[in-house]
Amino acid sequence: MEIKKYEPTEKRGLVVVITGYGKGKTTSAMGMALRAVGHGMKVCIIQFMKGDLYTGEWDGIKKLGGCVELTTTGKGFCGIEGNPYPQAEHRRNAQDAIALVYTKMESGQFDLLVVDEINNALDLNLVDLSQVHDLLDRRPALTHLILTGRNAHPEIMDRADTVSAIREIKHAYRQGIEAQPGIDF
Amino acid sequence: MEIKKYEPTEKRGLVVVITGYGKGKTTSAMGMALRAVGHGMKVCIIQFMKGDLYTGEWDGIKKLGGCVELTTTGKGFCGIEGNPYPQAEHRRNAQDAIALVYTKMESGQFDLLVVDEINNALDLNLVDLSQVHDLLDRRPALTHLILTGRNAHPEIMDRADTVSAIREIKHAYRQGIEAQPGIDF
Repeated sequence: MEIKKYEPTEKRGLVVVITGYGKGKTTSAMGMALRAVGHGMKVCIIQFMKGDLYTGEWDGIKKLGGCVELTTTGKGFCGIEGNPYPQAEHRRNAQDAIALVYTKMESGQFDLLVVDEINNALDLNLVDLSQVHDLLDRRPALTHLILTGRNAHPEIMDRADTVSAIREIKHAYRQGIEAQPGIDF
Repeated sequence: MEIKKYEPTEKRGLVVVITGYGKGKTTSAMGMALRAVGHGMKVCIIQFMKGDLYTGEWDGIKKLGGCVELTTTGKGFCGIEGNPYPQAEHRRNAQDAIALVYTKMESGQFDLLVVDEINNALDLNLVDLSQVHDLLDRRPALTHLILTGRNAHPEIMDRADTVSAIREIKHAYRQGIEAQPGIDF
């Protein structure tokens, strides 16, 4: 079977929001990164809310041979019970992260930017709505921007081209099953 | 910051179903494949309903250096307007595909199996419900099984550990924007 490659007559960057409470938001962004690399694109991922817990995509991405740059920021725990850090510290981290996103986006080096868990960061007041609007305003026309995380802001969803909401129908951990490598982290 | 690696006290394979009409089902499965590779796991992906249209993950996966084996089956068009193939031909393809899934699953070579768009294949009567139950029955205890596609069968969701449903809030193509490489394929 001969494989056909679809070529859009007009290339353009898209803004994609992936939100909701179910499993698959960051995961889906990682899948788009993998797909983009297949097209020879350069990808930058900035993770906002990660803490110090290892997750498999960090090493998976290294295998993609320099096509994907990933930066992890945040201290974890924000908005979670047992949070040992003051809000100001979380906010400082997120402010550094969003400054980095602007820099990477405007560097001209990347075709696809994943801003992982920025929706939660906005919801938790670690970044401001105006800063996320700014991100969309300053986006180069051919750059794809993927914004993930729970509680996406309605104004940001309004401005996006594609929005998916992932609903949790069930999750293993609610049945007392521990998180498993390869699936949950 | 020191990175901690969570180790479950009991390792077990999970059955994950990703369904719904929104963007991100196959994409999310690709993200789990990438994550699993980061953990040093071996992944097998069998795509049921793909046709002859190129998609970026095919080349993305090649960059992961032999950790992921991907087989594409199907002729496309099934259940879609303008379908030029008889149902019997689609079913024959899907039957070959499910036979391959059993073989790969029982080979002991893979930690994670993605059975991409098998939910639609079942919904379109290309495979039988009993065959999907069989897949779950025969699954080795440590093997993860990810079943993607629209219209997942309630009995299969009942048996899964984790189920996510992706809802389309909006999609670029509904606003007349063409599919874009890296995002849509």
